[in-house]
Amino acid sequence: MFTEILKNIKEKPPLVHCITNYVTVNDCANSLLSCGASPIMADDLAEVEEITSICNSLCINIGTLNERTIQSMLAAGKKANELSHPVVLDPVGAGASSLRTSTTFDLLKQLDFSVIRGNISEIKTVSQGTGTTKGVDADASDVVNGENLEETIAFAKKLSQKTKSVIAITGAIDIVADSHKAYVISNGNAMMSKITGTGCMLTAIIAAFCAANPTEILKATAAAVCTMGLCGELAYEKLIKNDGGTLSYRTYLIDFMSKMTPELLMKGAKIESR
Amino acid sequence: MFTEILKNIKEKPPLVHCITNYVTVNDCANSLLSCGASPIMADDLAEVEEITSICNSLCINIGTLNERTIQSMLAAGKKANELSHPVVLDPVGAGASSLRTSTTFDLLKQLDFSVIRGNISEIKTVSQGTGTTKGVDADASDVVNGENLEETIAFAKKLSQKTKSVIAITGAIDIVADSHKAYVISNGNAMMSKITGTGCMLTAIIAAFCAANPTEILKATAAAVCTMGLCGELAYEKLIKNDGGTLSYRTYLIDFMSKMTPELLMKGAKIESR
Amino acid sequence: MFTEILKNIKEKPPLVHCITNYVTVNDCANSLLSCGASPIMADDLAEVEEITSICNSLCINIGTLNERTIQSMLAAGKKANELSHPVVLDPVGAGASSLRTSTTFDLLKQLDFSVIRGNISEIKTVSQGTGTTKGVDADASDVVNGENLEETIAFAKKLSQKTKSVIAITGAIDIVADSHKAYVISNGNAMMSKITGTGCMLTAIIAAFCAANPTEILKATAAAVCTMGLCGELAYEKLIKNDGGTLSYRTYLIDFMSKMTPELLMKGAKIESR
Repeated sequence: MFTEILKNIKEKPPLVHCITNYVTVNDCANSLLSCGASPIMADDLAEVEEITSICNSLCINIGTLNERTIQSMLAAGKKANELSHPVVLDPVGAGASSLRTSTTFDLLKQLDFSVIRGNISEIKTVSQGTGTTKGVDADASDVVNGENLEETIAFAKKLSQKTKSVIAITGAIDIVADSHKAYVISNGNAMMSKITGTGCMLTAIIAAFCAANPTEILKATAAAVCTMGLCGELAYEKLIKNDGGTLSYRTYLIDFMSKMTPELLMKGAKIESR
Repeated sequence: MFTEILKNIKEKPPLVHCITNYVTVNDCANSLLSCGASPIMADDLAEVEEITSICNSLCINIGTLNERTIQSMLAAGKKANELSHPVVLDPVGAGASSLRTSTTFDLLKQLDFSVIRGNISEIKTVSQGTGTTKGVDADASDVVNGENLEETIAFAKKLSQKTKSVIAITGAIDIVADSHKAYVISNGNAMMSKITGTGCMLTAIIAAFCAANPTEILKATAAAVCTMGLCGELAYEKLIKNDGGTLSYRTYLIDFMSKMTPELLMKGAKIESR
Repeated sequence: MFTEILKNIKEKPPLVHCITNYVTVNDCANSLLSCGASPIMADDLAEVEEITSICNSLCINIGTLNERTIQSMLAAGKKANELSHPVVLDPVGAGASSLRTSTTFDLLKQLDFSVIRGNISEIKTVSQGTGTTKGVDADASDVVNGENLEETIAFAKKLSQKTKSVIAITGAIDIVADSHKAYVISNGNAMMSKITGTGCMLTAIIAAFCAANPTEILKATAAAVCTMGLCGELAYEKLIKNDGGTLSYRTYLIDFMSKMTPELLMKGAKIESR
């Protein structure tokens, strides 16, 4: 199912423009390289339109947004929309401050996003302005589990219809949905929440997968989510074997990203469609 | 002695707001996660008060300060003071430029800090504006050793009285003092100065330990200093065994932080009170 | 040939002021520490002149330039020139946007650089404003190979004459040239392009090597290029042995930097002069 998706990245390595936070920017750059893409980070208003024009997709991450970079996000996003480049949004901490919430709303109003990826609290904020976001982690009361899975799938589909974006809600169970179809993905490992940046890296990788597969946004996003989750599982196995800790885990995670193959992914993907 | 301190972090994982430098920000975030806390980095004036309000402590690090973020430090600090959240200062490079020194003085005048952590040169600058800081490392002429230990302890206690802050002077020998009591800690390894960010990470961890133990600031700070130093020792043992270099050392350091237990800490802490 | 160069770094550890991008800044800091130097990152206009004054060299990297930091680069550069400190330029992505190209030209007009290091596309932009830069990687049509080596050497020498700077063009084959002499270096490994920051790290290390050897800029630059390339080779051997991926590769690269000796370098250097 994902063989073509991955092949397209290796064959036409996409260049991904990231306007992202300074906490995890290095991990995002290395993740993009590890999956076969090339990153370029540029956030000055004077160059973002030009930079995004030479790229194949744009990744906007509001993790350390500021007055200056918000303007750059809007300008780059408009240019990318104009050029029909995939644009992916990571509304980090939406709901945690008025600035994050209102910026998220501004971005959604002014730009068309191919994909919006966040934890359930952030995506609820995207939808309603009512999620209770505790910092940059999902709030416990929001967690997707067996009991509210159907409800959350319906919510994701509806939000996709409203936003015209593929919605990726990630957590213990991941949901990737457009208005018609949802994938439920159960790859991943709890250790992924013990290092910073797994969400940011995933969003960057989604931008790469979509850049190389612009007519298959839903499938490309699902492939990226599966890939990241599977790398998280493989990294955990290696961690246990080597008796390592959290920073070793990050190393293994990106290592496995760089060694992922269509075969490995097809064998390891835990995905079903709804 | 530190069992309760560590238990409180695991039981009520604190959320730590960091306004910090972009050099070591990723290491700070991963250190916080590794010790059981959650980081949120936010530095725009429009959101720092709100962000600090949902957090349990605030860490201010001036390592790559600029005009914009200095304002954010002051605003966040005032709000955190208002809410009685622990606020921790890392005056990186105070003494190395007028901007760093005057910003440090402004912060000290306008805010109440629970803890101030720096190397001896930085702390001397905090005290007198007379430390000779060579860049971001302590000046050789300032180094704490057997000969000037008593003198330095007295200096730390007096500075604590003056600032109403716990003073943490770190180096080969670490001193953590309030006006009445000082802890002398000899954990640590020289390799810690061969990677960037050990000071910044320690300050972030102090903010986490204090957030979870707001009524035990002195002890929480001492526990954080011991923990970091012990991780530095364990990482060095592993480094020697694996014939690694400096970047492996960082990985091991944070790995051990994520595997620290009250038992390990009690067994390894080299601490005496004066 | 390089024994003295390396010895000078260990004996008089230089302090290197970096105004650099936030993507790879942590790697740059750790690379500088790993080779025996000390980094200080400072980019606020209010302090850059003072900071550069207490340092031994200045490294300017335009990877995530913005309006604010461009002013700081110019101010710091002028002060460093005044003090005759080595100043090294990394024109990241010059040619990829008007802002990067015009900033590169402004820097070249207003400052004297000891060394300019870039990939062939960036250096062509430095020379003519005509390189076709694809993001931050060299364009395939620009790649230095056996066929155009002589031509590229002549180009580098001529550009050195024009700019009065040592020119370092890095890629599969590296060229380090002044107007009279060129070194052709074939150390390195293709994996170095699969992680972010190897170029930035090299530029930072060049600034350290030059700081400790200010009268031997050409040789110091060649030594830095050889060292980095050799570390890339040793890291690759270890990677294969340990079946690692890209992030392990970064760890090994910096690890070997911290373990480099004059003996190892003399044995491994693949360098010839033209």
